[in-house]
Amino acid sequence: MPNPTAAMLVIGDEILSGRTRDANIHYLAGELTERGIDLKEVRIISDNAGAIVAAVNALRAGFDQVFTSGGIGPTHDDITADSVAQAFGVPIDVRDDALEILFAYHARLGSELNEARMRMARIPEGATLIDNPVSAAPGFSLGNVHVMAGVPAIFQAMVQDIVPRLAGGAPLVSRTLRIERPEGEIAGPLGVLAEAKPELSIGSYPFHQAGRQGSNVVIRGADAGAVDTAITELRSILGGETV
Amino acid sequence: MPNPTAAMLVIGDEILSGRTRDANIHYLAGELTERGIDLKEVRIISDNAGAIVAAVNALRAGFDQVFTSGGIGPTHDDITADSVAQAFGVPIDVRDDALEILFAYHARLGSELNEARMRMARIPEGATLIDNPVSAAPGFSLGNVHVMAGVPAIFQAMVQDIVPRLAGGAPLVSRTLRIERPEGEIAGPLGVLAEAKPELSIGSYPFHQAGRQGSNVVIRGADAGAVDTAITELRSILGGETV
Repeated sequence: MPNPTAAMLVIGDEILSGRTRDANIHYLAGELTERGIDLKEVRIISDNAGAIVAAVNALRAGFDQVFTSGGIGPTHDDITADSVAQAFGVPIDVRDDALEILFAYHARLGSELNEARMRMARIPEGATLIDNPVSAAPGFSLGNVHVMAGVPAIFQAMVQDIVPRLAGGAPLVSRTLRIERPEGEIAGPLGVLAEAKPELSIGSYPFHQAGRQGSNVVIRGADAGAVDTAITELRSILGGETV
Repeated sequence: MPNPTAAMLVIGDEILSGRTRDANIHYLAGELTERGIDLKEVRIISDNAGAIVAAVNALRAGFDQVFTSGGIGPTHDDITADSVAQAFGVPIDVRDDALEILFAYHARLGSELNEARMRMARIPEGATLIDNPVSAAPGFSLGNVHVMAGVPAIFQAMVQDIVPRLAGGAPLVSRTLRIERPEGEIAGPLGVLAEAKPELSIGSYPFHQAGRQGSNVVIRGADAGAVDTAITELRSILGGETV
């Protein structure tokens, strides 16, 4: 059975403008890979309701799981929850259980649960909450779409809450052979190996270091023995060392 | 006249698997913003011809300019040039001017221009070349699609070749007010300001630092005076300092 597939939707003008460097894609990619869920596509879009609705609907139809980051805070530009509700065609309103979580958090801190903060208890009908141990305001899952915060510490905590609950697959075994020769010199034998072993995924990634050109060849597959055999074969032809 | 729009397509299994952290999105975002070209969407997809063709065709129809990174090297997994040709429905073959560039480069280095390296001279019909001062093998522009390497040093050099040749717009003026209060406390007045000034883009980005919560409010607009006025107004209500 093939592994489950996933897509990620990053909602953030601040990333598209170059103001902020995204930190969540790399984190989610690593977590999903470990659990055998294949991240197939990431989209970064702006804080625009039409763009969010279109992307959510395209991705939830195309992939088993969809993860969003960003746009669920208390300010006027936080429109993700309403846009996801719109994408699913369901109503959204302040929900009691989410409100209680915020109420308890602000009671403990002695801060005010004002109207802006109450917006963070707006949850689309039919959604289940995702725990936020950092700052209380929950994310949510609606169908196969998991809506999380953009602040990296909160995003990571939410991923730890939701990803272990999802069906995983067989994590691919991955080995890397570092070869101190440019890609142009190894491409021939590498292509022959890739053609002979269609069950393996063989990628080549050039590096430039201290004026030298080299290649990291990454071989991935479900069967560790087959991956190791391919690495050994390649090394006998091209040299290099596993890293 | 609204600014030209752009999208970026990152082609790379290694980013989706979490092996590599992308460095090109942030760089291109900053360069485009400086030139008044609005980056509206980024997609990261895998090294798969069907996925590349579909994404190229969706993005080139939706945005004024499209920039791709990755997949133009000499190895079997470098399929971007062929996929872009397929997306446009044009033939692709080794082209003399591109081959001459590679020939001169390898003659100078004393390395062999072998069959794998000659693949990097495959250019779709009707494309113009993008200069690669790092390692010679060119990128290309076909219609509004600009195809560049994934290695950051080469990507950046190619961006410096192509972006200045494109029509730019009015770079937005951007000012940031750093307020040492959590978003939930400033959201009310901020929302009122945003509604009163629809000509400005007003975003709020929370930060958590040394146990304190605060907000960076970013105000952007074409008119520097209007942005400054809004910052002054906001500061008189909420405090904070420009950063």
